[in-house]
Formats: sequence, structure tokens, C-alpha cells
Amino acid sequence: MKRLRYAVIGTGGVGGYYGGRLAHAGHDVHFLFHSDYEHVRQHGLRVESCNGDFELPDIQAYSNTEQMGPADVVLVGLKTTNETLLAKLLPPLMKEDTIIILIQNGVGVEEAVSSMLPNAKLAAGLAFIGSAKNRPGVVEHYFYGHINLASYNLDSSGSERLEQVAEEMRTSGIATRVLDYAEARWKKAVWNMPFNGLSVAMRMNTADLISGDMEPLVREMMAEVIAGAQACGAQGIDESFIDAMIESTRRMPSYAPSMKLDYEHGREMEIEFLYRRPLAMARAAGAPMVRLEMLERMLSKIAQKMREE
Amino acid sequence: MKRLRYAVIGTGGVGGYYGGRLAHAGHDVHFLFHSDYEHVRQHGLRVESCNGDFELPDIQAYSNTEQMGPADVVLVGLKTTNETLLAKLLPPLMKEDTIIILIQNGVGVEEAVSSMLPNAKLAAGLAFIGSAKNRPGVVEHYFYGHINLASYNLDSSGSERLEQVAEEMRTSGIATRVLDYAEARWKKAVWNMPFNGLSVAMRMNTADLISGDMEPLVREMMAEVIAGAQACGAQGIDESFIDAMIESTRRMPSYAPSMKLDYEHGREMEIEFLYRRPLAMARAAGAPMVRLEMLERMLSKIAQKMREE
Repeated sequence: MKRLRYAVIGTGGVGGYYGGRLAHAGHDVHFLFHSDYEHVRQHGLRVESCNGDFELPDIQAYSNTEQMGPADVVLVGLKTTNETLLAKLLPPLMKEDTIIILIQNGVGVEEAVSSMLPNAKLAAGLAFIGSAKNRPGVVEHYFYGHINLASYNLDSSGSERLEQVAEEMRTSGIATRVLDYAEARWKKAVWNMPFNGLSVAMRMNTADLISGDMEPLVREMMAEVIAGAQACGAQGIDESFIDAMIESTRRMPSYAPSMKLDYEHGREMEIEFLYRRPLAMARAAGAPMVRLEMLERMLSKIAQKMREE
Repeated sequence: MKRLRYAVIGTGGVGGYYGGRLAHAGHDVHFLFHSDYEHVRQHGLRVESCNGDFELPDIQAYSNTEQMGPADVVLVGLKTTNETLLAKLLPPLMKEDTIIILIQNGVGVEEAVSSMLPNAKLAAGLAFIGSAKNRPGVVEHYFYGHINLASYNLDSSGSERLEQVAEEMRTSGIATRVLDYAEARWKKAVWNMPFNGLSVAMRMNTADLISGDMEPLVREMMAEVIAGAQACGAQGIDESFIDAMIESTRRMPSYAPSMKLDYEHGREMEIEFLYRRPLAMARAAGAPMVRLEMLERMLSKIAQKMREE
């Protein structure tokens, strides 16, 4: 097997965790930092994980992608609110055979990157993780951590490389599966679409959102996403997945989904890729998600108020 | 025409305004007060109206209905959250031919009173008014003020009396119409159901709720109420009513609907009659209001949080 050169774009709670695990296991990982670049150059990166803390004192850190040079695998951990930055950040990393894994929430991100960079060889990464970077140079990992990968437009050699990445992740301590693309993207949406938006609209964490009158609503919303997913061609998701997602949420500590953290910190929310694009796709496929469309309108109004204030 | 003896139960922003106008025009009106009874006995009732202030220095004020004695017409201005109180408050006022006009929001209030007091001769009163009692003995009237009346179970002499009330209201300065019962109740619901709940869920006043992404949502919700109303037998409401309600809302000053005021003051919200009963009726009639059911669940959760805090 070729030794892969990894580049991590967006070393936050997600990119820092997955890239950090790979680097800790001895892989060749190069990290892009933004606000805490100087801190990390001096002190390294620390991962405080529920599965055991570790440090990367000699991390390969960069402040721009020109200096990183071409990579075999790019892990994108940016929020989708920064999607347009990828048009500038990715080209210096791309060779003929580079595969780019978009570890991002939402539906439609690969289409968006493809339209900016038509040659990009893309895969999806769907992370089931509670993690954040709240302090310079420190990634906090609270729970879970498994990831689903899926080829978006990889040829056979690209798909082989994706399998190699999956194996290297597994041996680095990350539970990793390779799934069908539509199934991978939409499965995450079944959780994301009800919980992220309701957590902002209701100003509540996950435990409250599955208690009392909310659990039936969350279940109805999940059923809407599943119907939309099926209409959009996602196989392998049916209504039995709802019970699994509710159970999984019960087993987590009560949690502020990423959109709620963005809202509370006055950051732009990921409404476009978490809501507008999948809603438009499902409506176009004849399976409109009425409750989630309502939630999207409420979120758009809340976002407008945030910008005004 | 017989000179009617009026009793007003619940002299707040609504009962105080309508009863106050009748008394100011010289009608025989007896008012039930609760917290500001002593104040009103000493200082009378003052109505500060956008159409001109007036005072009732010699108001006929009571602190219980036993002392008021039987009335020809009872105007009920209580919130529906106090509906069970009517089982005790009304009987001392009721003669054979007493008509009781429930000037309350929501759908299902006449059914609820009928089940407590099977002999009650009932009519609905739907008030289109911005008013409140924020200080002892002072009713503030901000805008509008017209009212629709409708017989629920009146016989022909009861209906004649309702027409007399309508005429006496008109000559007292209140724009008053007598409508079909279902039409009257549900027309008000077309406005109430979107705006009251969204104002709480979104913490916004009416102007914000018809701006940006909210207006389409409000229109969709109104269409749901109209479909439900039609399924429940309300004639004379069609989708053209939506434009009229949006226009009417634009012409008001931006306003906190009564449910938002209740929420902000930590009072119980009128979820039962404004949402649960009409939602159940529409669903039973084969026209479920999906977006409003979602809103009801959010409101119920918000109410549960209020009780816990």
C-alpha cells in the first residue's frame, strides 16, 4: 500500500479529531489552521477525548494550502457556511488522483464543490460525533466518533483509495464504514434536520427535544426526511431507522447540536445545506417535507434577526 | 324593546371595553371584577381608547356573581384558561331566557360550557381588537374593536335578543355583525392560529411575522385553517380571506398577540381552545392541519418548560 499524504482543511472539532487520530497512529497528516495557527506551532495540538487524551506536539501545521503542497487525501472539516472558500483552498492540494472527502453535514455539498471545481474527485464523510474546539489548540471529544464514508464521483482507483482511508481510520481507532452515497448523506440528515433546527427554534438541547410532546414531532419529521430520501434515490433507509435514531439520542448526554452552538455564538447557521438544498431536492422529487419546510422558514427568520442585531 | 340587564364576567381588556362602551351609552351593565374591585369601587373604570377616552365613575361593580343577580345578557370576557370557573360563576346570573355570549378566542368553547351547563343558551363573540388592562381600573384600547356575534344554540327568542344586543352595541359605537356560528368561530381562528403561536415560538410581534420568510409560512398556515374550517362545516370562508387577513395585519401597529403577552407574564397560555380542540376537530373531519399541529407541540413544550421554571 502507498503511504498516503493527508491534508486536513479546517482543523476544528471534526477535522482536528479525525486528522488527529490518523496522525497519532503515525500517518502523514498535514493540518490547516486559521486563528490558532501560532498557538499550535508553539504548543502542538491536544485532543481531550472521552476515549483517552492524546497530544500531537510535532504536528505538521500550516496557515495556507499553498505551503502544504499536493495531497493524496483531503479531509474537509469546514462548516458549509464556508463552502465558497474551497474554490481557493483546494486547488493547491489537488493532483490528478487526489480524493477529497467532505466531512460536512447537509445534503448537496458535493454538488456545490463539483460546480466550483469540476475536476474534483469527491467523497462524502458523515461524522457521528460530539466534539468541538473551544480553546486554541485543544479539540474536545465528548461522545461517539464513528464515520460513514461514501464515493460521490470516484473512479475505481479513487474508490480503492477510499477503502484504504477507511482501513487506516479503523486501525487509528475510528469506527468507519463505506456506504452508498445517497444512503450515507441522507441517513445523517434524518438526525440533523429535526434536531439542529428545533434546538435553535426551541432553544433546547437534545434531551428536551425527545421528551414530552416533542418526541412525536421529531418522529414525524424523521419520517418526512426518510420519505424525501427515498424519493431522492436513497436505498437502505426505512422507518425502522427512526427508532434507532431516537434510541441513539437517548444514550447521548443532552447535547447542543452544532447549529445551536452557532446560534448561541452569533455565527452563521448552516441553513443552506442542512435545509434549503435537501428540501428543494425532496420537493422536486415529489416528497415535500412540510414540517421541515416550516422549520426552515423559522430558522431563516431567526438568522435574519441575528444579522440585524 | 325590553331594557336589557347586562352582566360582564371578566372585566379585562375585552369585557371592560365592550361592557364599558355599552354602559357609557346608557345601558344597564353590571361588571364582575377580581383583583381591582376595591380600586374600581373608589375610582370607577377608565377606558383609554384610540377613539377617545371615557370614564365610568359610577360603574356597577361586583366582586362575585351571587350579588349581581340574574341578567338578560351575559358577556363573558374571561380567558379560556379559566373556562372551568364558569360552572360556578354563571348559574347565579342565569334565568330561563338569559343568553350568554362567550367573547373568547378559540374553537370549542361553547361545547365546553354546554357540557358543564347543559341549559345554557349560548352565543359566540369574536372580538377583533387590540386592548388590555395593564393597570387597576384602566382599560387600554389600541386599535380596531369590531365584533362578530353568532348563535350557538339559541331558540328564536334568544336569536331575537342577540339581534337586539347587536343593535345596542352598534349604537354604542361598536361595529357589530351577526354571522353563522361556524363561520364566526373559524374566521377568527384563521388569524389566531398562526399569529398567536408563532409569536410565542418565535418571540416576535406581528410585523416580524409577516416579513421575509414568515409571510409565506403564515399564509400556508391560514390555508390549513381554512381547509379545516370548511371540513368542519364553516361556509363563507375561502382562500381570498387570507389576503384580507394579511392586509389587516399590515395595517395594525406591530402587536404582541394575547398568547405572547401571557407567555411573557408567565401566565398559562390558551393552547387548549386555540389549538388542541380545533386541531382535533379538523383532523377528525379529515383535514389535519400539519403545520399547526407542529406549532401546538412546540407550544406545549414551551408551556411545560414554563411550569418547571
